[in-house]
Amino acid sequence: MGVKLGILGLGTVGTGTVQLLQDGTGRHPLLQEIEIYKVGVRSLDKSRAVTLPKSVLMTDLDAIVNDPKVDIIVEVMGGLEPARSLILKAIENGKHIVTANKAVISRFGEEIFTSANKAGVYVMLEAAVGGGIPVIQPLKQSLSVNRIQSVTGIVNGTTNYILTRMQLEGSNFSDVLADAQKLGYAEADPTADVEGLDAADKIAILASLAFDGRIKLEDVYCEGIRQVSKTDIAYAEKLGFVIKLLAIAQTVIPPSSNPPISVRVHPTLVPKNHPLASINGVNNAIFIEGEPIGQVMLFGPGAGAGATASSVSSDILNLVASLKTSTALPNPLLGCRHQHYCQITPMAELVTRFYARFLTRDQSGVIGKIGTCFGDRGVSLESVVQTGFQGELAEIVVVTHDVREGDFRQALAEIHSLPAIDSIPSVLRVL
Amino acid sequence: MGVKLGILGLGTVGTGTVQLLQDGTGRHPLLQEIEIYKVGVRSLDKSRAVTLPKSVLMTDLDAIVNDPKVDIIVEVMGGLEPARSLILKAIENGKHIVTANKAVISRFGEEIFTSANKAGVYVMLEAAVGGGIPVIQPLKQSLSVNRIQSVTGIVNGTTNYILTRMQLEGSNFSDVLADAQKLGYAEADPTADVEGLDAADKIAILASLAFDGRIKLEDVYCEGIRQVSKTDIAYAEKLGFVIKLLAIAQTVIPPSSNPPISVRVHPTLVPKNHPLASINGVNNAIFIEGEPIGQVMLFGPGAGAGATASSVSSDILNLVASLKTSTALPNPLLGCRHQHYCQITPMAELVTRFYARFLTRDQSGVIGKIGTCFGDRGVSLESVVQTGFQGELAEIVVVTHDVREGDFRQALAEIHSLPAIDSIPSVLRVL
Repeated sequence: MGVKLGILGLGTVGTGTVQLLQDGTGRHPLLQEIEIYKVGVRSLDKSRAVTLPKSVLMTDLDAIVNDPKVDIIVEVMGGLEPARSLILKAIENGKHIVTANKAVISRFGEEIFTSANKAGVYVMLEAAVGGGIPVIQPLKQSLSVNRIQSVTGIVNGTTNYILTRMQLEGSNFSDVLADAQKLGYAEADPTADVEGLDAADKIAILASLAFDGRIKLEDVYCEGIRQVSKTDIAYAEKLGFVIKLLAIAQTVIPPSSNPPISVRVHPTLVPKNHPLASINGVNNAIFIEGEPIGQVMLFGPGAGAGATASSVSSDILNLVASLKTSTALPNPLLGCRHQHYCQITPMAELVTRFYARFLTRDQSGVIGKIGTCFGDRGVSLESVVQTGFQGELAEIVVVTHDVREGDFRQALAEIHSLPAIDSIPSVLRVL
Repeated sequence: MGVKLGILGLGTVGTGTVQLLQDGTGRHPLLQEIEIYKVGVRSLDKSRAVTLPKSVLMTDLDAIVNDPKVDIIVEVMGGLEPARSLILKAIENGKHIVTANKAVISRFGEEIFTSANKAGVYVMLEAAVGGGIPVIQPLKQSLSVNRIQSVTGIVNGTTNYILTRMQLEGSNFSDVLADAQKLGYAEADPTADVEGLDAADKIAILASLAFDGRIKLEDVYCEGIRQVSKTDIAYAEKLGFVIKLLAIAQTVIPPSSNPPISVRVHPTLVPKNHPLASINGVNNAIFIEGEPIGQVMLFGPGAGAGATASSVSSDILNLVASLKTSTALPNPLLGCRHQHYCQITPMAELVTRFYARFLTRDQSGVIGKIGTCFGDRGVSLESVVQTGFQGELAEIVVVTHDVREGDFRQALAEIHSLPAIDSIPSVLRVL
């Protein structure tokens, strides 16, 4: 037989991958050279959607990563530990890795890739970002001849589903979240999704590939969607925008070989004619700008057994092809080639447009006062709309031109201290 | 120095590629191991946007493909001859090929890939379809673990530009074409674009990769956009569709290892909520459905110096990586792996929805008569709308459910012979 897999985990993704590999008709013929040699599970007694010989299933995961016959470890168990330790042990034992685990890679990437480079093995992670969408391999290969200027993704299906429904139904965040939990689109503890942490893991990985350097997860600025209100969605709509949770990595002063970049996750007003504006529901999309390619977008299912199994299997296929044809040298299109860290621009230095909503006590002259505070800090306004009333308070919405975030924040603090201002319920960035 | 390129042609694409390769900062470091060794041009005297040493430029293209020092031939001259002969000669001399030439590949693919397999060299063609969009390599690699069910593309920028403007402006085909020619979006002889021939070349290539078999270009059914009227665009809009020139390859009876497929290019009514409906202007997009991945779409610039240079350079990068790491064995993810022909389903056997517009002389009972003719052939109607009048004639628009095209055509012939029918100005398929 051919290349031997040790699969760690037989949940949704593991089961999907086994089903794909067991049913090779009409797929790449190289898949037939793969043997599902060992599958590590928590319990042998559970009934399963796939049939595997008794000799294949086992509960001792250490034995799988230590088995000298295993060529590739497919880590689809999720979570930080024991996934991290098992991956490191397998690498030490000279095995290639395929993983769908964005959390482990974004947190322990340095440790994992340093050991992988030392051991001369590959760590493949197409399934870690964008579900079934081919994005990791295109960034390593086809797109890597470009100077990447920005990577902007809708990379979390749960929050995109929630925002899409809020938009279509005019509903509140909390109502849609509760319903999404009932329907299985959001988890019982939705923190990782709605706070943007899952998206932060993913943009750290994409930024690392696009800008060819390591990213510290704590350098990724992160704002979730809890504070997005139906009021803001409605105003955004009127102004020609939809609100999306975007994960963004972009160069600040291109072009150079190690440009400072900004890496961040936050709800964002997206112009309706932007390709990302029409990505709805649980779908994901990654929009990439580069020189000389221009703008490309990769769109598809962000999660699900089939989509993720497709990405996991494509990584396995890449490794099998490489094992069959390559000499000992690492293939520069599969491996990780950077060891330095990317230079991250602080948020205060970011240049972006803003949307802000003010509740004001006193109508006469208040727009003038807001305008003066902004003007003093060099913040120029694209539009100022007095939109309506909430009780006795007047509601004013402004959209700025591009400003330095630090300047905008200072102006905002000054506005906040004006007696005419009751509160500033929303501040959102604009793409 | 490293890998030596012989570039044939220094037009838009050739110049873009040289510019990219000469300016390596911020791109994949492997590009620095490439030497632009010879560039074949028609005239040495022409002033050029790139600076190359005198020893590099030459007019004797045969000498370049016969030069034993050249590792890779980059064919960016276009046209059928001498491109075909030079490619074949280079292959015979053991050189790898990168080409942007869809016409040569779709017509002479069998001859070219047979010699390449014999000589053990690769023929790379990312730039032949979809400009800068990474689609060829994803189809060979990431997506190839899937059973592909359909590939549906907007792969011709000129016709998409024309249809988009007709849609937005309510203009006639001939007026928009004339303006597009003035603006440089359409060529003086627009035949290859507006008749769908360019899209046919491209879908033949995509189908071959997606369904893992060769395609005879003459088996690709092809209908252009000349007959698309502003009237039909307006009706389609009312019914919830936009009209796009789609290039489609799809399995008819999935799944099997060599399923019969339908390969075709024609103007198509696309539901407004379909991801392809919002692809406007000169952009291209390729929408792919597979099992188990579901639906993915790859979107980007369909033409232009920068986009095409990105694809050409990514092919060069792939070859250089392969030359640096691989043994003599062909890499199964780069090479062509099929030698048989795909089984093509005749159009009469296609199952699809239709849109048809009738001009009728006699209103009373005519809808009933049309309905009866369709019913007799088992064609069921989704909607029948009597939409207005053109002079004394009443206009009736129907959209069918899925029908066998042969049955639909027979019913249409019967309807055409009814005394109440003046004419059938439009028949279009619906996605």
